[in-house]
Amino acid sequence: MTAPRPGPATGADTDVGLLSPVRAGTPAETTTSDTAWLQAMLDAEAALARAQARLGTVPPDAAGAITAAARAEHFDVRALALAARETANPVVGLVAALTAHLDRQSAAEYVHRGSTSQDILDTAMMLVAARTLAPLRADLLRTADALARLAAAHRDTVIAGRTLALHAVPTTFGLKAAGWRHGLLDSVQRIDRLLDGGLPVSLGGAAGTLGGYLEYARTASALDTEEFHDRLAAAFAAETGLAAPLLPWHALRTPVADLGAVLAHTTGTLGKFAADVLLLARTETAEAAEPAPSGRGASSAMPHKRNPVLATLIRSAALTVPALAAVLAQALVTEEERSAGVWHSEWHALRECLRLAGGAAHTAVELAEGLQPDPDRMRANLALTGSGIVTERIAAVLAPHLGKTAARRLLTEAAATAHTTGTDLSATLTDLLTTTLSGTTDLTPEHLRDLLEPAQYTGVAGPLTDRALKRGASTR
Amino acid sequence: MTAPRPGPATGADTDVGLLSPVRAGTPAETTTSDTAWLQAMLDAEAALARAQARLGTVPPDAAGAITAAARAEHFDVRALALAARETANPVVGLVAALTAHLDRQSAAEYVHRGSTSQDILDTAMMLVAARTLAPLRADLLRTADALARLAAAHRDTVIAGRTLALHAVPTTFGLKAAGWRHGLLDSVQRIDRLLDGGLPVSLGGAAGTLGGYLEYARTASALDTEEFHDRLAAAFAAETGLAAPLLPWHALRTPVADLGAVLAHTTGTLGKFAADVLLLARTETAEAAEPAPSGRGASSAMPHKRNPVLATLIRSAALTVPALAAVLAQALVTEEERSAGVWHSEWHALRECLRLAGGAAHTAVELAEGLQPDPDRMRANLALTGSGIVTERIAAVLAPHLGKTAARRLLTEAAATAHTTGTDLSATLTDLLTTTLSGTTDLTPEHLRDLLEPAQYTGVAGPLTDRALKRGASTR
Amino acid sequence: MTAPRPGPATGADTDVGLLSPVRAGTPAETTTSDTAWLQAMLDAEAALARAQARLGTVPPDAAGAITAAARAEHFDVRALALAARETANPVVGLVAALTAHLDRQSAAEYVHRGSTSQDILDTAMMLVAARTLAPLRADLLRTADALARLAAAHRDTVIAGRTLALHAVPTTFGLKAAGWRHGLLDSVQRIDRLLDGGLPVSLGGAAGTLGGYLEYARTASALDTEEFHDRLAAAFAAETGLAAPLLPWHALRTPVADLGAVLAHTTGTLGKFAADVLLLARTETAEAAEPAPSGRGASSAMPHKRNPVLATLIRSAALTVPALAAVLAQALVTEEERSAGVWHSEWHALRECLRLAGGAAHTAVELAEGLQPDPDRMRANLALTGSGIVTERIAAVLAPHLGKTAARRLLTEAAATAHTTGTDLSATLTDLLTTTLSGTTDLTPEHLRDLLEPAQYTGVAGPLTDRALKRGASTR
Amino acid sequence: MTAPRPGPATGADTDVGLLSPVRAGTPAETTTSDTAWLQAMLDAEAALARAQARLGTVPPDAAGAITAAARAEHFDVRALALAARETANPVVGLVAALTAHLDRQSAAEYVHRGSTSQDILDTAMMLVAARTLAPLRADLLRTADALARLAAAHRDTVIAGRTLALHAVPTTFGLKAAGWRHGLLDSVQRIDRLLDGGLPVSLGGAAGTLGGYLEYARTASALDTEEFHDRLAAAFAAETGLAAPLLPWHALRTPVADLGAVLAHTTGTLGKFAADVLLLARTETAEAAEPAPSGRGASSAMPHKRNPVLATLIRSAALTVPALAAVLAQALVTEEERSAGVWHSEWHALRECLRLAGGAAHTAVELAEGLQPDPDRMRANLALTGSGIVTERIAAVLAPHLGKTAARRLLTEAAATAHTTGTDLSATLTDLLTTTLSGTTDLTPEHLRDLLEPAQYTGVAGPLTDRALKRGASTR
Repeated sequence: MTAPRPGPATGADTDVGLLSPVRAGTPAETTTSDTAWLQAMLDAEAALARAQARLGTVPPDAAGAITAAARAEHFDVRALALAARETANPVVGLVAALTAHLDRQSAAEYVHRGSTSQDILDTAMMLVAARTLAPLRADLLRTADALARLAAAHRDTVIAGRTLALHAVPTTFGLKAAGWRHGLLDSVQRIDRLLDGGLPVSLGGAAGTLGGYLEYARTASALDTEEFHDRLAAAFAAETGLAAPLLPWHALRTPVADLGAVLAHTTGTLGKFAADVLLLARTETAEAAEPAPSGRGASSAMPHKRNPVLATLIRSAALTVPALAAVLAQALVTEEERSAGVWHSEWHALRECLRLAGGAAHTAVELAEGLQPDPDRMRANLALTGSGIVTERIAAVLAPHLGKTAARRLLTEAAATAHTTGTDLSATLTDLLTTTLSGTTDLTPEHLRDLLEPAQYTGVAGPLTDRALKRGASTR
Repeated sequence: MTAPRPGPATGADTDVGLLSPVRAGTPAETTTSDTAWLQAMLDAEAALARAQARLGTVPPDAAGAITAAARAEHFDVRALALAARETANPVVGLVAALTAHLDRQSAAEYVHRGSTSQDILDTAMMLVAARTLAPLRADLLRTADALARLAAAHRDTVIAGRTLALHAVPTTFGLKAAGWRHGLLDSVQRIDRLLDGGLPVSLGGAAGTLGGYLEYARTASALDTEEFHDRLAAAFAAETGLAAPLLPWHALRTPVADLGAVLAHTTGTLGKFAADVLLLARTETAEAAEPAPSGRGASSAMPHKRNPVLATLIRSAALTVPALAAVLAQALVTEEERSAGVWHSEWHALRECLRLAGGAAHTAVELAEGLQPDPDRMRANLALTGSGIVTERIAAVLAPHLGKTAARRLLTEAAATAHTTGTDLSATLTDLLTTTLSGTTDLTPEHLRDLLEPAQYTGVAGPLTDRALKRGASTR
Repeated sequence: MTAPRPGPATGADTDVGLLSPVRAGTPAETTTSDTAWLQAMLDAEAALARAQARLGTVPPDAAGAITAAARAEHFDVRALALAARETANPVVGLVAALTAHLDRQSAAEYVHRGSTSQDILDTAMMLVAARTLAPLRADLLRTADALARLAAAHRDTVIAGRTLALHAVPTTFGLKAAGWRHGLLDSVQRIDRLLDGGLPVSLGGAAGTLGGYLEYARTASALDTEEFHDRLAAAFAAETGLAAPLLPWHALRTPVADLGAVLAHTTGTLGKFAADVLLLARTETAEAAEPAPSGRGASSAMPHKRNPVLATLIRSAALTVPALAAVLAQALVTEEERSAGVWHSEWHALRECLRLAGGAAHTAVELAEGLQPDPDRMRANLALTGSGIVTERIAAVLAPHLGKTAARRLLTEAAATAHTTGTDLSATLTDLLTTTLSGTTDLTPEHLRDLLEPAQYTGVAGPLTDRALKRGASTR
Repeated sequence: MTAPRPGPATGADTDVGLLSPVRAGTPAETTTSDTAWLQAMLDAEAALARAQARLGTVPPDAAGAITAAARAEHFDVRALALAARETANPVVGLVAALTAHLDRQSAAEYVHRGSTSQDILDTAMMLVAARTLAPLRADLLRTADALARLAAAHRDTVIAGRTLALHAVPTTFGLKAAGWRHGLLDSVQRIDRLLDGGLPVSLGGAAGTLGGYLEYARTASALDTEEFHDRLAAAFAAETGLAAPLLPWHALRTPVADLGAVLAHTTGTLGKFAADVLLLARTETAEAAEPAPSGRGASSAMPHKRNPVLATLIRSAALTVPALAAVLAQALVTEEERSAGVWHSEWHALRECLRLAGGAAHTAVELAEGLQPDPDRMRANLALTGSGIVTERIAAVLAPHLGKTAARRLLTEAAATAHTTGTDLSATLTDLLTTTLSGTTDLTPEHLRDLLEPAQYTGVAGPLTDRALKRGASTR
């Protein structure tokens, strides 16, 4: 790992992922890099020129030249970042650089024609989002598929259901895995809703009236003002692969707030999976382990440890994204035709949401595909409360005979006594059942044994698992 | 305002709205009160009994008696609140109180049969949400209707478009109002998506397997385990008016996180409207005023003031809800079959989101219906930059003749000179246009006048307004 | 729990604690109730009259009459809440009500003289904060004292140190408890810093210049303008028991933001304690249990459970307060001399922070005083990794002989082999040590035994505990 | 701006500031870069070796060699970032790389001796914080100094005080500037509190007992266990320039939460300044302008605009940091001896808080030093309400004669009439005063004129400004 680095003057070492391993090297880091944003802004400029060419207001050759020039490698992204301080956004500098790059070509006249910084940056934002959501969605589906396999394989693997940190009643590992998958499919559904509606291009001109576009169009041709927005928006959408919005959304920030909400949902459902894995992996519980290729999970101090690092990374993202999504939600309150500061607070926050969610999804694939459940340990742990885990059932059996309140009181006392004295709760329960069921057809040794057997008290866990696995992800 | 009050021991003065005028006395305050939650929990208990009666596992008479008893006025909500400290939720105490209320009736045996606290509280949460969203949605639509009237009436009322706090290019007040409405309809659409999917009942039993329900059902009748969840969930849904979920969602918190996201969107779009009104109402701008019935907006110090109190209240809600929605989003990371603490953090946060959003929507009706735009003042303010507001257009006109860079430089210098010397920018621009257009057919006095006339440079604001007003709210 | 309730029209059932058991019935709920805020506002009005009387600008009799009238029970807090919608704050209505209450007395003329809503509401906010911080601080200290006793009693009780959910190396329960206490004392220190600096009265008049106060003072007497603010602020501070600020802080919100930060710190350190208790209490770990008076921790479904409800409640507060403190931090960005909306977002958010933190601290007293550690179980759990928990030590012993890299590799392999094959890691380690130390004075049976004994590898846990317990809370 | 860039494989373009112009190229970006963190981690490793050398447990030569090797340029920070995914933190890989770098030197054996990842990363975090707070603090003081000059120069420059967006009563621009400065000094005071207490080294070993350090020390020498932590912590502190903590703080996160709170305070007070500048700069108000070197504030569309970009950038930071500080506050709830995920959520969030606050402070220097107030425009705007701005004063003058309620009512009516009819409020007020004061010594033309003169109604704004300017920043 000894190598030359770019110097600080380039800003190249500002962030290469050292503090955010959840996304270092993942697809989402690449699709949200500054260069990726720069390319998306250039894509927006080029698409806008081509869209205007479709309407006949920019010469096709000029649109072609702009498209050819619009490649990130032609520009110094750090210089553009520094220049952005002068104008509070990176587009002004980019337009100048792109114009300069086309120096002496007539196409230079058509760069950013009629446009405004926000049209370019917002459209780029949606392109970056779309390019990040694609691999993110694929990773969610891969994770969901792996969980479906786990759920099917462990449909009837009994495990302690735990509420408020304690054993409650038995459930199955299959239902747990099906639940994790269900959460992820909820996130996929919300992503699809965004993508199906179409992330929109941004097209408004200086203050949302398309005045500049129209003026240039007027000088070029006779245009129908009524249809102008719709035609230009449709062409811009077609050239970018995004959707045409009903209205310019410079100051109507639903697209960005929606992304924040969906990404927070995504890290939330991934975080639920991770949090449960962390609890299963605890030394005392040990019901599941992370996959462990060589070196994974190593501690700098303790040779014996195999840390649950994947779940740890996912959880770190889940702890961060809701706060950043709140920044995006509050940005709905943007002033007038363009806010001084609110709009500007969105860019980096959205990037961070995208790459944390994308990184977490990518990490979850490996976690789900390699997760190692331990059914024997699950079984062994079920015995820890000595039949305490089935007292809910015993209460239901006794209630018709003793009344629910009396039945419950008896069982509470029995459990407390067993806990205090260390005696065997199962024996006490057997006595209680024998006495109570005396003379009924239920009083058979098999039935008594079944009543105390956790594996016989999983309710409808199996059918629920089957049902959950029938839910498919929408296919896009 | 001098009157007796309930004493502190009752907790009755904990919160009667003094610190949150945005929702004091609004429908959302009533539908989210502790008594409303209590009633919703009782509704859930009663519906659950009736649902079990539908399946034949609870006697119809018992379900009827439970339903009759399940009225909030029979119970001491403060005592239940205090009792909730012992069990970390209010349901355990409620079940005891409801059972006691049915004392000596056989129905007492059937209260909460097979159930768990979370089934009741989560179902109540959805009932409260549904009962709050209904008036909230209606208030959003009333607000949107009022804004539609404003937008139509002022389709061609020219106003300065403002970006980064400064005059940018002209737009219309109609497009502004249409934009506010568009944002609100986005919120309505998101609410409808929730309601159309159906807010779900919660039905899982102690740990999401329905073990207890099934056990009691077994003692009562021969039941098909495979279909049990679906049949009971469908019956419970039918009895509550909510939807049946695919899976128990004790630990899959999409329904709550979704509510948070939608409510943050709602206060965001309302907040955008309010923020713009506050800027229009400023003493220097004075382009719109809030409605002012007698006493409204009075200051405790200054007789001349008529404070924009409605917008102020709405904005206070918009500043709060995103943070609380983040609490709900982070609650997706809930551990195991029921979290110790995460679930508990949702209740009050959701209530607060609901009543702030509902209060803000209710307040917005009055603001929108009474808003007083001042077209004369808008017109007068357009002159403040002395034609600066149309320099984008002039740049577009000059660019084909001078090149865009040269045109822009000339105009920047002209604006700077006018600013520095206090001279008339319009005259400079007229000279520049005359010289540049010399010999073209564009050089007519009418055209020159039009080019400097803000009202002639509103782009497609009119058609966009028309287009926006065609968007209807879904009719439910 | 069957009792009559005040009807919804009074708003009395808006919130009596049902959804927030962490604070229901605690001192902080009382000190932050709407009635408590009302009384604090009245206290501010009365103190202001008396302060002006000290300066000779209000007749002492009038100040006395105002003081006598300024009792919350004279006023209808719900009516004031509803009236607050008209003016966006509750002070305008209160001034009218207080004036009306003094009807026909000349003192009515001196109510709120020269003042403004914000002076009263902000001063009341600080009074409410001071009145809540006092019991909160006392509860933190009681909790800390109980933890000190636990730490001293268990100075040498060995327990598994756990990192990333796994056994790491041994530590002591004493050091854990001392750490919890240390965190709480950090919070006390931050509270003391606020209280020692003095929560300030708010005194600025309509826009922070004291213009109104001064004008009335001018009509009453010859006053030194230079000293006027300082004299009136000092008198107001003396009458309220608060501090005199250097400047009016209507738009300089450090006092409120500081409270938010300190309260978030407080629920954070309490939450750390609670989170650790929840992990210790897990069925598989069972190293500590919550105190369990009869009925505490009961489940509505499962008779055997004794839920860790105190820790659950504390954690629910810790999950909420940081978000609300962020609302208060963002309120530092308040516009001009008084914001339209930002100021208004503080009131309820601050109240919620105060009562959640106060409730959590009150709950923590009981948790700490009744916590039941189980040293035997701690000891038993230490064996779960079969000497894995001391491999760090073995690595240190072997390193000088084998080189650190080789030593580490050997131990990693040994641990992996033991894990995979289920063989006894201790035996392998003994062999390894015997071979490596062969011929050194360290090769004694006692030493070998000690090296594998977790209780012999607690580092400086004991001295650190002693050191931590010497830290006292400042005595106020 | 056309230049070659490092390819995506290096991660070098992940973030070079393009989306965050508020900190692009500022000192805080440099002091918080990944390379800066890497250097700080290396500094921690080296200091730890030297500290152990001070205690005699590491050979001085080895410490020297480690120190010589510990230079960021020897390592590939991107490779370390990628490797961090395997272990959930970058230290494990760094230790391996540093050890490899010392290949064949005996010093390699002493790298990271007895240590743990968290000791290194937490210590690095504090070093990075200290290195960022130094220039940040200096920038705050420079900004405060510039504001002091403005305040002194404009001590008596009258400006409209504005509350809830409307003219309230007159104040002075001097008091406004003094208030901005006062807020910044509050932030400096909070920073100084952190720095004076000393940002602490992190020293705990694997689980906070220093077990590994002690074991290695035992093999090297006879050490006093009692004093071991204190001696090693003191030496480590001395070698890093940080402070020695009372206890290891791996799981007691006050230092990080405190930083978050202070940085949110800092962007809050800077944001208040920026928000006010944005309002003063509005086209209609135009009472102050940002400094405008050539090109600054250019719009991509509108030649005439000179956007308030500095205030915009500062505000964007202020809208983001509170949310991230909430992430840090919630991280106080970290589990056990080291959390799986909570700790990991701190690193990037803290970096972002540091660089946004540092960038905002750096930006504020330029804003404050170049701010251009326009006293003439302030004066002109004061006339906008036609004496409305002094009605509070007139009310105070009339009250002794008419009673406060009657006086207030008369004035409210007069203001409403003037507003409705467009008549001259000043004339009405003059009539009212003349009638009311008839026969008193106050009825002189001079007095009447003074009463309506805004400049004569600034209360104690002047003395308050003087008083505020006497507050010095602590000198460090």
